[in-house]
Amino acid sequence: MAKPQPKYLSGDAAAINEFLDRFDTFLFDCDGVIWSGDHVFERVPETLELIRSRGKKIIFVTNNSTKSREQYLSKFTKLGIPATADEIFGSAYSSAIYISRILRLQPPRNKVFVIGESGIENELRAEGVPFIGGTDPSFLRDMTPQDWRGIADGSLLDPDVGCVLAGLDMHVNYLKLSHALHYLHRGAVFLATNTDATFPSNGSLFPGAGSIGTAPLAYMSGKTPLALGKPSQAMLDAVEGRFRLDRARTCMVGDRLNTDIQFGVEGGLGGTLAVLTGVCKLGDWEKEDAPAVPGFYVDKLSDLLVAGSSSG
Amino acid sequence: MAKPQPKYLSGDAAAINEFLDRFDTFLFDCDGVIWSGDHVFERVPETLELIRSRGKKIIFVTNNSTKSREQYLSKFTKLGIPATADEIFGSAYSSAIYISRILRLQPPRNKVFVIGESGIENELRAEGVPFIGGTDPSFLRDMTPQDWRGIADGSLLDPDVGCVLAGLDMHVNYLKLSHALHYLHRGAVFLATNTDATFPSNGSLFPGAGSIGTAPLAYMSGKTPLALGKPSQAMLDAVEGRFRLDRARTCMVGDRLNTDIQFGVEGGLGGTLAVLTGVCKLGDWEKEDAPAVPGFYVDKLSDLLVAGSSSG
Repeated sequence: MAKPQPKYLSGDAAAINEFLDRFDTFLFDCDGVIWSGDHVFERVPETLELIRSRGKKIIFVTNNSTKSREQYLSKFTKLGIPATADEIFGSAYSSAIYISRILRLQPPRNKVFVIGESGIENELRAEGVPFIGGTDPSFLRDMTPQDWRGIADGSLLDPDVGCVLAGLDMHVNYLKLSHALHYLHRGAVFLATNTDATFPSNGSLFPGAGSIGTAPLAYMSGKTPLALGKPSQAMLDAVEGRFRLDRARTCMVGDRLNTDIQFGVEGGLGGTLAVLTGVCKLGDWEKEDAPAVPGFYVDKLSDLLVAGSSSG
Repeated sequence: MAKPQPKYLSGDAAAINEFLDRFDTFLFDCDGVIWSGDHVFERVPETLELIRSRGKKIIFVTNNSTKSREQYLSKFTKLGIPATADEIFGSAYSSAIYISRILRLQPPRNKVFVIGESGIENELRAEGVPFIGGTDPSFLRDMTPQDWRGIADGSLLDPDVGCVLAGLDMHVNYLKLSHALHYLHRGAVFLATNTDATFPSNGSLFPGAGSIGTAPLAYMSGKTPLALGKPSQAMLDAVEGRFRLDRARTCMVGDRLNTDIQFGVEGGLGGTLAVLTGVCKLGDWEKEDAPAVPGFYVDKLSDLLVAGSSSG
């Protein structure tokens, strides 16, 4: 059976206007859509402004776990993109919410061992979840003979750890992974902020949370984590808990079929828009193993500006 | 269909004597069989001595890639286990042999980017294979903005790299993994010394080569490496190339069903002996997804000494 084909919008002002009119809310992925690393794609701020000027709600839904909502807000401001903390949902936030409000680990075994950056720590702290690991400088070193012995016999492990949360950690090392493995062996709940294989930066792809945290820990422990970023519906539930979305009039905009587009399709959103400035390339949705097919696509986000110039 | 059951030898002198008489050559895994880390299991030297005294050939076949044959020999000597360099086959050696004699990368694109320790480097050097990465201290640091840019645009990549070889690296970090990913994207051949999920040390399990090198790189690149350690038959071919084994009269001794025992079974060896001092536990071979079933098992290697005391 032929797969449904997405509608190409770039350059078609009428189609873009019709597209925008179908939705009240736009969920935006960031990496690969809004920016790549610290490089904002051309005319993205104007595009977001156009969408806002049409009375649409904008929410940023990102799997990048390295930043908390506050840290994201700083980045938006620095890059000249108007936003509020309320509009930002990251997988670090989604994970903290899941741990504090759904998992609800009981003391004393309620600590989280973190593989990740300060964004995760900030969100856990905001939710009052105790944690160790993460950016703690005492973990940024080689293994010592004491480590080998103390991890093996458990004397260096914290008996209060009940959960391992793995995200993108630019300072991952053998010591942290060894601790995480032993906590998993002792029955800790295994969570992943997200399982993205890569993330776009500087116009290229770099190792993502799924490659740095999840894949190694899953392989060494034989366990599969519960992932809390896209395409996990836990993320959409968190967004919906805040905004009471009308899913039929909500559109997910992203650069990845297996996170963004799948997230929107599985969440029963009214639409999905793929942009080709990140991971997904033209025709990827036609492949046999394509995880999801978008409803629409544009070459780049600012192609939507044609609507503004024709109807404004 | 009921699986065949391995024969339990511990405490049965007659069965052990019959077992020893069936073979001329014994291939021994090391981690989890001979030792755990720097701890030699009880009475292992005497057991090896007994086997040698019966006129048997002993060969150590280990997936641990952190040591070269010479480094292994030092460890054997330090731990009081008689051995010669000729008797030792590690996955670092097996990988170097594969690269130099089978892969035969043509200059100028013949460099290997190494994720691993000095054992791999020593074996590559012995085979005259140029390499970068590995233990080079210039890779032991955080990513800088220059790294992000230079890896993304390729200006910091070595155009002569034609192969990525991933093994166990206790100093793995984001910088090394980012380099490796980009070499793979540029078409480098992807090899793994071995894909062990864990390795036994200090009476416990720690992250293995498969978890530290292979799993992350495979996940982020979408590519599957050719693995050169057990159960890859490339390892057995290398052993056979040196010794002209009679496979029917050769027995593989190991602690892992999915490396050692599978290696012996797939290689058509006359026998396989599982020891329970490492990863594999009693009855693991009865599980639905057991990768292989050993022909024999003992609780620990020195249980074979019963043969000596009864027949000597």
